[in-house]
Amino acid sequence: MFETGKSVEIVEVSARDGIQNESEILSVDTKLDLIRKASDAGARRLEVTSFVNPKRVPQMADADELAARLPKGTARYIGLALNARGFERAVAAGLDEANFVVVASDTFNRRNQGVGTEETLAAWAEIAQTAKGRIGTGLTIGAAFGCPFEGEVPLARLLTIVERAMAHPPDELALADTIGVATPADVMERVGAVRRAFPEVPIRLHLHNTRNTGLANAWAGIMAGAVTLDASLGGVGGCPFAPRATGNIPTEDLVYMLERAGICTGLDLDACIDAAGWLEEQLGHELPGMVMKAGGFPASGAA
Amino acid sequence: MFETGKSVEIVEVSARDGIQNESEILSVDTKLDLIRKASDAGARRLEVTSFVNPKRVPQMADADELAARLPKGTARYIGLALNARGFERAVAAGLDEANFVVVASDTFNRRNQGVGTEETLAAWAEIAQTAKGRIGTGLTIGAAFGCPFEGEVPLARLLTIVERAMAHPPDELALADTIGVATPADVMERVGAVRRAFPEVPIRLHLHNTRNTGLANAWAGIMAGAVTLDASLGGVGGCPFAPRATGNIPTEDLVYMLERAGICTGLDLDACIDAAGWLEEQLGHELPGMVMKAGGFPASGAA
Repeated sequence: MFETGKSVEIVEVSARDGIQNESEILSVDTKLDLIRKASDAGARRLEVTSFVNPKRVPQMADADELAARLPKGTARYIGLALNARGFERAVAAGLDEANFVVVASDTFNRRNQGVGTEETLAAWAEIAQTAKGRIGTGLTIGAAFGCPFEGEVPLARLLTIVERAMAHPPDELALADTIGVATPADVMERVGAVRRAFPEVPIRLHLHNTRNTGLANAWAGIMAGAVTLDASLGGVGGCPFAPRATGNIPTEDLVYMLERAGICTGLDLDACIDAAGWLEEQLGHELPGMVMKAGGFPASGAA
Repeated sequence: MFETGKSVEIVEVSARDGIQNESEILSVDTKLDLIRKASDAGARRLEVTSFVNPKRVPQMADADELAARLPKGTARYIGLALNARGFERAVAAGLDEANFVVVASDTFNRRNQGVGTEETLAAWAEIAQTAKGRIGTGLTIGAAFGCPFEGEVPLARLLTIVERAMAHPPDELALADTIGVATPADVMERVGAVRRAFPEVPIRLHLHNTRNTGLANAWAGIMAGAVTLDASLGGVGGCPFAPRATGNIPTEDLVYMLERAGICTGLDLDACIDAAGWLEEQLGHELPGMVMKAGGFPASGAA
């Protein structure tokens, strides 16, 4: 079940999910600095912006300009889209991948993207067909472990949505614990069930550390066969529908856990800690990351 | 590997490890309130004090008075001891169990209890023999996953110490991640190795959430066969040798994770959250627990 030497991919999402709820709007220059620092630390896939209504998410109003100025190199850039219009903007902006979202609960889907889950699934069916050869695709199932409005999201409901979505398979399927309620048992169950139903699609996990279970869930997800994990430097992030929620799982905490467990991430822990500290300075408030405070182990330079 | 319906025992350590480094000395009355609130929330084993030099740990200077005033009922009370004198005090105080500590690294053992690991192992051999029929015994191996002074603690070193200690088996053997450096892989490896060597002794884990891996380690420990976990309300706690370290794993966060995963703890989540909030008020500073801020899920009283 556990093999040392395996590797896990981390998608750095600080520039998108991480800062999207920050009240202070960061400049494009600052965002590009953040993306550059994450890339320099070893990030090879980064979710950098979302193509959404700037009135609803002011922090992402600069999506097109940011995309145009992204440094070319070894990293792949992902843009989030909630509808066909956003998807076409991601294509036009020249991003490598578009990440489309369907929320597992109807109420949350309506609040998040203005239409019901059914309508968004129909939009996905069209988008998936128009995407071929133009851009890589990821499909995220939001609130896959629970909904702030409807409460429990039954496994059967999740599997029905996944099955509907997989009629037009994305390059990658993500399960999102949008409000941070999952436990390792949930992650094992749901990742396992999706993998059994669709063994070919790579599974990505988007986890929030709202109830302290984020890294436990990451671990369980890897054990259950997820190959990619979202994380944000410093653990920056939040959910507009869960005001007391903290952010994504911190990149540097995840790197610490995995690298010390013999699982390769390709990221450099010290560079991640530095970047998280820099981001904290830019935002002007403390971030929830813990390794950025405690340091790695054994201490760098220690005997 | 994972079975719903199993149960895990939580030892509430807020009154001992949790508050021992708080600069403000709590009154015996306040400590007894804390112990009562934890018991009312369902805690059936509590580490309530340590019988150590009051000059070194002023918060524990009231150990004898506290022990004399403990409410009698269904809970079992544990006192920590670092030498034969402390052990005899625990017996004299009428506690149910004495938890003796041997630190896996020699340097840390010297800083913690003034003598080397060898000498403490010799003390344990004597204590274990005098304890029979007088008090329950637990033996904690401190810094079992890493040392703040020596760095890595090789598995072979840990196993040698465990083997020496097990010449006089305690009722329970605890592995402590005293400075919060373990990963789930370490926990699986070390709990697994100790269980293979000594399948009869129940394994308890004492984990700190210094690097955000606390709950992941708890989960891995349970999967590897640990039957008891230490935790503290609100995650209060710290280590005098790791100044930026946060505390023990928060009781209510652990209860949330386990109960939602179908693992029984016997503790009531809402009562734990209330007790953690009360403790935060007593201490006058924010505690690191996360479920006490985010709430459980689904929300109590939600549809």
